[in-house]
Amino acid sequence: MTSEEIQTEVLQMGKQARAAAHALTKLSTEKKNEILLAMADAVLSREAEILEANEKDLAAADEMGLTEASKDRLRLTPERIADIANGIREVAELSDPTGEIIREWTRPNGLRIQKKRTPIGVIGIIYESRPNVTSDAAVLCFKTGNATILRGGKEAIHSNRALAAALQEGGAPAGLPDHSVQLIPFTDRESVRHMAEMDQYLDLIIPRGGAGLIEAVVSMARMPVIKHYDGICHTYVDKEADFDMAEAIIVNAKTQKPSVCNALETLLIHRDAAAEFAPLIAQNLSAKNVELRGDDEFQKLAGVDGVVAASEEDWTTEYLDYILAVKVVDDLDAAIAHINHYGSHHSDCIVTGDEAAAERFQLEVDSATVFWNASTRFSDGGEFGFGAEIGISTDKLHARGPMALEELTSYKYLLFGTGQTR
Amino acid sequence: MTSEEIQTEVLQMGKQARAAAHALTKLSTEKKNEILLAMADAVLSREAEILEANEKDLAAADEMGLTEASKDRLRLTPERIADIANGIREVAELSDPTGEIIREWTRPNGLRIQKKRTPIGVIGIIYESRPNVTSDAAVLCFKTGNATILRGGKEAIHSNRALAAALQEGGAPAGLPDHSVQLIPFTDRESVRHMAEMDQYLDLIIPRGGAGLIEAVVSMARMPVIKHYDGICHTYVDKEADFDMAEAIIVNAKTQKPSVCNALETLLIHRDAAAEFAPLIAQNLSAKNVELRGDDEFQKLAGVDGVVAASEEDWTTEYLDYILAVKVVDDLDAAIAHINHYGSHHSDCIVTGDEAAAERFQLEVDSATVFWNASTRFSDGGEFGFGAEIGISTDKLHARGPMALEELTSYKYLLFGTGQTR
Repeated sequence: MTSEEIQTEVLQMGKQARAAAHALTKLSTEKKNEILLAMADAVLSREAEILEANEKDLAAADEMGLTEASKDRLRLTPERIADIANGIREVAELSDPTGEIIREWTRPNGLRIQKKRTPIGVIGIIYESRPNVTSDAAVLCFKTGNATILRGGKEAIHSNRALAAALQEGGAPAGLPDHSVQLIPFTDRESVRHMAEMDQYLDLIIPRGGAGLIEAVVSMARMPVIKHYDGICHTYVDKEADFDMAEAIIVNAKTQKPSVCNALETLLIHRDAAAEFAPLIAQNLSAKNVELRGDDEFQKLAGVDGVVAASEEDWTTEYLDYILAVKVVDDLDAAIAHINHYGSHHSDCIVTGDEAAAERFQLEVDSATVFWNASTRFSDGGEFGFGAEIGISTDKLHARGPMALEELTSYKYLLFGTGQTR
Repeated sequence: MTSEEIQTEVLQMGKQARAAAHALTKLSTEKKNEILLAMADAVLSREAEILEANEKDLAAADEMGLTEASKDRLRLTPERIADIANGIREVAELSDPTGEIIREWTRPNGLRIQKKRTPIGVIGIIYESRPNVTSDAAVLCFKTGNATILRGGKEAIHSNRALAAALQEGGAPAGLPDHSVQLIPFTDRESVRHMAEMDQYLDLIIPRGGAGLIEAVVSMARMPVIKHYDGICHTYVDKEADFDMAEAIIVNAKTQKPSVCNALETLLIHRDAAAEFAPLIAQNLSAKNVELRGDDEFQKLAGVDGVVAASEEDWTTEYLDYILAVKVVDDLDAAIAHINHYGSHHSDCIVTGDEAAAERFQLEVDSATVFWNASTRFSDGGEFGFGAEIGISTDKLHARGPMALEELTSYKYLLFGTGQTR
């Protein structure tokens, strides 16, 4: 396809999505939930087709040179398909934020003002190899009355098509407006550019994937982009920390699931705590096969073999692995300065018994979620009680931190008059 | 200056602003208000210097070929300087949204979660000829704990420098952190590009000016941009409208102050109301020297001289003048479709006695503010009771409609634990 042909098709999808967004404003919550249940049924009843499509992607994966980890992300099984369907049913159970009256007041001239929660409109989702994102993202956006244009990775194109067809054709008889969920059927890189430039039709783009993908979208996009960048999460052990608690929190945040964005990547230890705490934590983590990369001070104090010297790069690296960077800092101010400078404004923690120190840390650390005495692993929509999440925003505008249904909405002002003029 | 020199200086200002933003998180509301009052005093006490600087700009204005209207926007007088100082004092009186606990809850595992309102961080303001924006924007951002980097138009550079110096040097003795308010001291176009690319230091850009400026910023910016585009505002006269009320609302919205974004630009009339209402409103507006540009139907019905044929372009034009486009529509659906297609999603109104029609209009018109039976001129932060506004957002993310102090804030999650792990 030529670039013009791709552009024509993407623009056509945009136009259709805008019409769908209008139709979606008219659906009741009950109707949306019925449609969601029909979508879940369709995903289950099309298991064979979806698995067959997934087989095609897996067969092509070796040619594309995908790693085993990537192939595992790509792979669907009957169990994973059941999880997708259950995920849709869970979204049907969640309460619908749209239509909520956020605030209401009356002006002295009698004008009544309602600030009312609405869908955003049309949301573009650009993602990589996990086919389940097709369903997860589409249904969260649909629940909040938004139309979606999905653009998945090349490596999952057959699986994505099969899943999108299940949602569309499963939802249609239950009343899903046409073009509410659209998947860009081709994977040329050009399609991302055309999406990013189509600000007349797309109100928001959410890229789901690595930093390279996000960077590319940010540099091209004319509409708002909500970014889910890396989590370079810190835990700072203050001089007033309970060392047992600190140890439990650090071990949990580093080792319970190292591959996720809320896992711990850098440990900071107050100078006055380091002599006692450094060897304690070094021994514990070494025994769990965590590689330690320390500054000079920590290397001296750790008292275990194999602590390597941390380089400048270590302070800005999201390992997603059994590796931890460790630094001894002079005081609370130095900890805050380090986190604000090297961190990714995602999730950071202080362990301390000193309330004033905790208060300053929580005020001054410029991150989406700031913990006092708990594992950063709790930075998660499910753990917050949101029921679902579309990601964890490292942005500060519109959505920050765990991003759930409410963050997929906008608002409008309704003004009720009786003929008022100025 | 070379592009590299400009970039180096802009980046340095960005770095300084980030440090200032950190210092600002530590100021109490009382301290911020003291600083604001000191800034207001400094603006007044430097009246002579500011007027002298303004004279330089006015002297250069003719060489630059500025229109009388532009020169008027540029001009400062003792009265306008007093207005600026009063504006600052009014901002000191407003309540400070930062620090507000938006929501607080406790999870079954005992983790307490606070969603707390915070400053955004560093905000870039790019604006054109009005020097008062230097003060208005800087103090609203400061009140909410944000550092600002201001980049005003070339034609106001001397006035802007004098005003910024008054804010900085007036605020400093009262405790204004260094670099909280910075003005880019040169006006090369390159500086806008360097600002737009500096997403490591700027959390948000707000362009204040015409569509050309906004377009340029949007196409370059790597960080969120909140756009204040045109107001192509509609009033739709339904078949169930009270014609006296409709007439009063239309006359007010069109003629009370035609130069502003919430003034009426397009009138839509239900076919069943047109025979009676079209001549009524045509006569009234013609008598007030409003040029009418109508579709075929309206031209036939208006019954006054001088109604010209509306072209396709008229439906997308923000006249900001004594001109009104008028169209007869078949029904409510046609009115909604016209507004969503041709409008700018700013402020639109239905005049009707039919509650169901009003409800549908307010639900389906995709605009920031949707009126039932009142003039669109009320789409304004002051009229909403917000006390101040930095503009009217035509975006749907983060801020929509009148944008006041609350919209200059972000939030963070504070988690309070007792050693919780997953």
